[in-house]
Amino acid sequence: MKVKKKKKSYKTSNLPPGTIAYRGEKQSTITNIEIVNYSKEEFTSLNSSSVEDAFNFEGNDHVTWVNINGLNNVKDIETLGLHYKLHPLTLEDIVNTGQRPKLEEFEYYMLVVFKMLFIKNDDEIHYEHLSLIVGENYVLTFQEADGDVFDDLRERLNSAKGRIRSQGSDYLMYAILDAVVDNYFTVIEVLGDKVEELEGFLFQSKDADDRTPGQIQKLKQEVLKMRRSIYPLREVISRMEKTDFAFIEEKTHSYLRDLYDHIIQVSESVDLYREMIWSLMDMYMTIISNKMNEIMKVLTIIATIFIPLTFIAGIYGMNFKNMPELNSDDGYFILLTGMFILFIFMLIYFRKKRWL
Amino acid sequence: MKVKKKKKSYKTSNLPPGTIAYRGEKQSTITNIEIVNYSKEEFTSLNSSSVEDAFNFEGNDHVTWVNINGLNNVKDIETLGLHYKLHPLTLEDIVNTGQRPKLEEFEYYMLVVFKMLFIKNDDEIHYEHLSLIVGENYVLTFQEADGDVFDDLRERLNSAKGRIRSQGSDYLMYAILDAVVDNYFTVIEVLGDKVEELEGFLFQSKDADDRTPGQIQKLKQEVLKMRRSIYPLREVISRMEKTDFAFIEEKTHSYLRDLYDHIIQVSESVDLYREMIWSLMDMYMTIISNKMNEIMKVLTIIATIFIPLTFIAGIYGMNFKNMPELNSDDGYFILLTGMFILFIFMLIYFRKKRWL
Amino acid sequence: MKVKKKKKSYKTSNLPPGTIAYRGEKQSTITNIEIVNYSKEEFTSLNSSSVEDAFNFEGNDHVTWVNINGLNNVKDIETLGLHYKLHPLTLEDIVNTGQRPKLEEFEYYMLVVFKMLFIKNDDEIHYEHLSLIVGENYVLTFQEADGDVFDDLRERLNSAKGRIRSQGSDYLMYAILDAVVDNYFTVIEVLGDKVEELEGFLFQSKDADDRTPGQIQKLKQEVLKMRRSIYPLREVISRMEKTDFAFIEEKTHSYLRDLYDHIIQVSESVDLYREMIWSLMDMYMTIISNKMNEIMKVLTIIATIFIPLTFIAGIYGMNFKNMPELNSDDGYFILLTGMFILFIFMLIYFRKKRWL
Amino acid sequence: MKVKKKKKSYKTSNLPPGTIAYRGEKQSTITNIEIVNYSKEEFTSLNSSSVEDAFNFEGNDHVTWVNINGLNNVKDIETLGLHYKLHPLTLEDIVNTGQRPKLEEFEYYMLVVFKMLFIKNDDEIHYEHLSLIVGENYVLTFQEADGDVFDDLRERLNSAKGRIRSQGSDYLMYAILDAVVDNYFTVIEVLGDKVEELEGFLFQSKDADDRTPGQIQKLKQEVLKMRRSIYPLREVISRMEKTDFAFIEEKTHSYLRDLYDHIIQVSESVDLYREMIWSLMDMYMTIISNKMNEIMKVLTIIATIFIPLTFIAGIYGMNFKNMPELNSDDGYFILLTGMFILFIFMLIYFRKKRWL
Amino acid sequence: MKVKKKKKSYKTSNLPPGTIAYRGEKQSTITNIEIVNYSKEEFTSLNSSSVEDAFNFEGNDHVTWVNINGLNNVKDIETLGLHYKLHPLTLEDIVNTGQRPKLEEFEYYMLVVFKMLFIKNDDEIHYEHLSLIVGENYVLTFQEADGDVFDDLRERLNSAKGRIRSQGSDYLMYAILDAVVDNYFTVIEVLGDKVEELEGFLFQSKDADDRTPGQIQKLKQEVLKMRRSIYPLREVISRMEKTDFAFIEEKTHSYLRDLYDHIIQVSESVDLYREMIWSLMDMYMTIISNKMNEIMKVLTIIATIFIPLTFIAGIYGMNFKNMPELNSDDGYFILLTGMFILFIFMLIYFRKKRWL
Repeated sequence: MKVKKKKKSYKTSNLPPGTIAYRGEKQSTITNIEIVNYSKEEFTSLNSSSVEDAFNFEGNDHVTWVNINGLNNVKDIETLGLHYKLHPLTLEDIVNTGQRPKLEEFEYYMLVVFKMLFIKNDDEIHYEHLSLIVGENYVLTFQEADGDVFDDLRERLNSAKGRIRSQGSDYLMYAILDAVVDNYFTVIEVLGDKVEELEGFLFQSKDADDRTPGQIQKLKQEVLKMRRSIYPLREVISRMEKTDFAFIEEKTHSYLRDLYDHIIQVSESVDLYREMIWSLMDMYMTIISNKMNEIMKVLTIIATIFIPLTFIAGIYGMNFKNMPELNSDDGYFILLTGMFILFIFMLIYFRKKRWL
Repeated sequence: MKVKKKKKSYKTSNLPPGTIAYRGEKQSTITNIEIVNYSKEEFTSLNSSSVEDAFNFEGNDHVTWVNINGLNNVKDIETLGLHYKLHPLTLEDIVNTGQRPKLEEFEYYMLVVFKMLFIKNDDEIHYEHLSLIVGENYVLTFQEADGDVFDDLRERLNSAKGRIRSQGSDYLMYAILDAVVDNYFTVIEVLGDKVEELEGFLFQSKDADDRTPGQIQKLKQEVLKMRRSIYPLREVISRMEKTDFAFIEEKTHSYLRDLYDHIIQVSESVDLYREMIWSLMDMYMTIISNKMNEIMKVLTIIATIFIPLTFIAGIYGMNFKNMPELNSDDGYFILLTGMFILFIFMLIYFRKKRWL
Repeated sequence: MKVKKKKKSYKTSNLPPGTIAYRGEKQSTITNIEIVNYSKEEFTSLNSSSVEDAFNFEGNDHVTWVNINGLNNVKDIETLGLHYKLHPLTLEDIVNTGQRPKLEEFEYYMLVVFKMLFIKNDDEIHYEHLSLIVGENYVLTFQEADGDVFDDLRERLNSAKGRIRSQGSDYLMYAILDAVVDNYFTVIEVLGDKVEELEGFLFQSKDADDRTPGQIQKLKQEVLKMRRSIYPLREVISRMEKTDFAFIEEKTHSYLRDLYDHIIQVSESVDLYREMIWSLMDMYMTIISNKMNEIMKVLTIIATIFIPLTFIAGIYGMNFKNMPELNSDDGYFILLTGMFILFIFMLIYFRKKRWL
Repeated sequence: MKVKKKKKSYKTSNLPPGTIAYRGEKQSTITNIEIVNYSKEEFTSLNSSSVEDAFNFEGNDHVTWVNINGLNNVKDIETLGLHYKLHPLTLEDIVNTGQRPKLEEFEYYMLVVFKMLFIKNDDEIHYEHLSLIVGENYVLTFQEADGDVFDDLRERLNSAKGRIRSQGSDYLMYAILDAVVDNYFTVIEVLGDKVEELEGFLFQSKDADDRTPGQIQKLKQEVLKMRRSIYPLREVISRMEKTDFAFIEEKTHSYLRDLYDHIIQVSESVDLYREMIWSLMDMYMTIISNKMNEIMKVLTIIATIFIPLTFIAGIYGMNFKNMPELNSDDGYFILLTGMFILFIFMLIYFRKKRWL
Repeated sequence: MKVKKKKKSYKTSNLPPGTIAYRGEKQSTITNIEIVNYSKEEFTSLNSSSVEDAFNFEGNDHVTWVNINGLNNVKDIETLGLHYKLHPLTLEDIVNTGQRPKLEEFEYYMLVVFKMLFIKNDDEIHYEHLSLIVGENYVLTFQEADGDVFDDLRERLNSAKGRIRSQGSDYLMYAILDAVVDNYFTVIEVLGDKVEELEGFLFQSKDADDRTPGQIQKLKQEVLKMRRSIYPLREVISRMEKTDFAFIEEKTHSYLRDLYDHIIQVSESVDLYREMIWSLMDMYMTIISNKMNEIMKVLTIIATIFIPLTFIAGIYGMNFKNMPELNSDDGYFILLTGMFILFIFMLIYFRKKRWL
């Protein structure tokens, strides 16, 4: 399902470069525009269906955040592009959900493309393509659909908690990235839970059904996909930290350094779980092998005890005329005793071999 | 078959350096020359059998694109080489299909060698050696055979769609590379479909015939070969983006940066599928092991149940004179009951062990 | 258990950046403040419950070491932060136990975050988040709980052993790091003992119970976790050695170089044990396979000897009227002899195959 | 055999540094000296037993190529060393066949040490230690024995084909290296043929005898050895391309760049075959496992069908007095029919399980 | 045993930095001091028990080599330290046998720490910690015990063979390092012999006892340990070659470059054997698997042939009253013939399956 989504984005391959067309999964979504405008003293937030509403708020001492939910309505995006003088390739990057995380500096703005990971009710990890454009006193964000990880941020903006209201658009960009990266931790936690659950299952039950390799394989793919979304962001934030882009104030750099620490930590956790998942396969193989040994032991014990005994019984089941033992009165009982002794002997042998 | 082709290109090894001789697979192909000439206002396209036709179009405000299909006719290539002052090693690179992707800057032109991957009707991935020479107002491309991925590009040139007609030869070079790289996505999609199909088969059927390792092995080789064709192009485009070559205009650089993003994305997809293919082998091994366990369980259950019972039957098949049980009227029926109880007991044991 | 701790630290993810809240395991710990003040001639050491006591000792010729045990009491940390002009992000790093080792230089101080590893009575490896702030004539250390590896250092400070009392705060920082790194050796020794114990067990007994893969898996995780704590410290010390931070005197650099040698040695040992642990799994697999072979041999020997013999006995257990052998007087004894010869022949065969 | 050769070269370990003594395999070879002298107009070639003959040809407009076959005659090498002012360590490198490929620049000359790989009639890959010294207008080459890959080059020199006769000693050096590197392709082709042959065998027959792991192991070693000879040459040629050594003319650099392309291509092919060989082992393991499954299936089918039937026959072979079935006239035929039905049932079961 | 030694060196962890205490294995060794003094004309060599004897030889045109065997006598080392103005950390490095190879430059001298590997009569590889201090006209070496690889060197010094007597202390340093590195070749040869012996055993016998994984594991550890001793020396010699330390004369640099070549060659050989050892494990696994297949084949052949035959015999061992075949005169012989045909049929089947 997810792979399909990626594929569709490839289909832009037959379009001339610079064509803007969203081919992601969420085609039917109605575009929802959220406009937040704030300064130290003021705060306005409104949902609109027209991007032009955002252009009223301009001014040097305000920060305007336009958040587009739904990449379907290409016209709105183009209107924004015209107003904020966005490069055609930027618009293409915004709607191309297959685009990997990257940072690009233009004359009037900086573009950051990355992935928002979050957990919905179904305990599945969802990936959303997110583009962020930061200019002198505005921030534009483009999401594929409604629902994001910015509720805390909105609350802080509204209630003027923390230092955010007294900072510029660069700090808002940092706050948005920070919200996304912080949410990576939650997502990794869910991945970690799955890994540990599977590991615990393998450890305790020392048992494994044949769905286990499939589950491990699925975790492998999950972690590979996550890595692809998270790894390039390391480089993005590292470059952002070092950039001398005009809008990034000096004091924001220490926050970006902190953000970089977080993304490094995230990617190290991903690597750790990756190694653990690879190890799980080894463990599963040893469990299978151990079970095989167990099965073979049972078979061997049974066969080794009864096959010789059956042979002896077969001997005395023969119909030779002259078999002296058969005529002895105690022959049968002596034989049974002998068989019993052999049986005990075998048991001792297997116990010595630690098979019992 | 494909490996053969590569080998043949090695055979140039016994020629003095600088010898121009095509040794690829498509020796019998008739060379087909396509000449496209355009400026913002004009557009001419003609198929010719003589390269000299191209030389008529020269002029500062035109861009001439000469596309040679078939590397067999060394004379035409040499004529072009003479006219455009190409270095002997350049001509050698054009016909040497074993040449890996590379970029070389000369005084009057820039040479880009790379591979065109495309899918024909047979769902197989075809590799074609492609050389591109870009000069002040001309672009030369050399393909091994007819059939390429430039039809959209030709259409755009013809219909003056997009910005291509108003740009120089550097943009045409970008457009050609972009068409090739975009087609990589389609090719990878096909590879991905094969990987996912095989994976789905392994997942669902939990079954595997012995052709599977062969299929996985073939995918491995496919992906290794693809990587060899695609990886070096990353470096080529990266260097192209940074070059200060005279014909590359400033505004084209942002398109090349975009192209670089695409090739990185392609190579990351290749790596992802590579890891997935390697994982498939592991999965296949666990499926085999599980099947073995399954088989052994059946054998062990049957043997463990019937071998002891057979032994008991053997006991009472003995011909001892004095076997009191045999003479008892109910002996047979008591024994049958005892055997049945043992049988039930065994079943319970196996169910407890989860073997049933 | 340990993983849980890490997770909790992630929970800061929902807080605005810059929030100071300890979410580690040791929440109930009462914060214990240890203040050490010394110069070449003087030495004072006191345990206090108020950080303000530390501020009395200021002066250019003294070094003050404030050691906070317990990160629970955020107020004390904030008081220190205010007095020593610590950046809000520094305070966040101090209480965020999930923070990976790092070095950060600020205007008035340098922050080093790392992990203290030590062995308690239970032979388990404990990880404690440790932050160190070094300023012109003070050192602040923040530990999660009581109990550390600095007892030797305290003793040396008290008894004026070695050169420590005559050096500045930079040497104290070095001495603290040295104590922590030196203790890594002890911790690695314990890990090494576990690895060698398991290896010895596998070697000698050539036996393996099914808990072994679990034990190996646990060692793998242990070594992965250790690497995550120790590796980043290499870079930290390397940067520290090269820094031109004002408080680090020239002569301290050679000590830091020595410390760097030690941390390199530690991380190489970790890598060595890592490779050895990975090898253990291979060894375990071969031991299982060998056991399987052993089991199969027993089964095959028994079956190969007795199944044909049983068949022969079965032949002469048939009730055909006309079976000449049965009526021979010596038939039975000839058959027994024949069976015995076959048996001996089989034994010779198996010995030749080296199965016996 | 080959490893022995390498070992012998180690034996120089007990000699003082700078001692010149050849310890390779070909000790008994008579040293054969080939002297080629040419300018654009003239060409002389002679085989001699005295190196002094070479000294007659000196002059600024001539290039002298002295090719020593056989490193046994240390005296001749020392004579050359004296005449061309070679450093004692250079002479040591010439005779030390264990020396890895390297480039060293001296005041009057440049030393290149590398390996010549070629295939003899036995289809085996032979390694020969080759040293090349290039000075202002002379080139010295030192081979271990007669027989090399320079016949084409000699022919071109003789017949004045190509541009070689009109170039200096630097171009001769390039031509020699080019001949060696071009021959690497042939050698790799042979390796590739072996790999593909083995792969084809594994693919088609789906069979494997127990010599296969040995063959794979041998290929592994072959490719490891080849890599050791070829890899360092990459760096050598890369440095050569960038050197500003006086004798290397500007126009030769583009040829060296071309040579570098070739050596990169060679080493990528080696890596490709390396990965393929490693994959073969995996494939072999799955084939073994599949065969094991096949064997176990046969055993299980036979045992599962006949063991229960044998048990039933055993039941009616018992000698109880009162067994009503035995006295029934149709008992035997009813039983046979029942057994046949059970047999059919089993077959259906196995077919359903896809074991048949 | 060897690991123990390493551990003991860790125990310095509880000492203050700069403490000089030898904790190696050879504690009981009596320190033996060897003093060699030479110039071009003179040569004196004496064994002494007092280091002060060395101080008599000072002078600008002499080179004094003081070789301390046994690190036990800390006093002597401290006396030397005082006389030659050695840094306390240098003295610590000399006695700390756990110290990894390194190079450190001080004002008056250069310290090189490395490992001497040599083979004693027991064919085991011994490791000895070796420190070398080179000053203007003296060289100090510190070994753990008597017995080293310098006998050739002493002989050359004594007999004035080679150029050593006419060179300074920097050449003596080179000669000592060269002797150590040259001996690495011998040690690797021994390792290689072991690897090849084991490989040959696996190849030829196609057999493997269960001690083999242990042997491979031991070789793995051996090669890992060797790598740890040899690898860091690469960097040491590389830095030494590039250093502009005053005592290292220009002409010595070319010798150091040669030494660097050797150490690279050594470490490549180590890596080669490392890969080969890792491969051995794979090979061992396939041999085990093949043996298992072999065993299973025997079992399956026997069972598949005799189980059905036994069943048939069982049929005619039944006691049904009405079994027409039993009364036929030829019944028994017809059955025997039938069984024989079945037997032949089975053999043909197995031969077709290539199991026989």
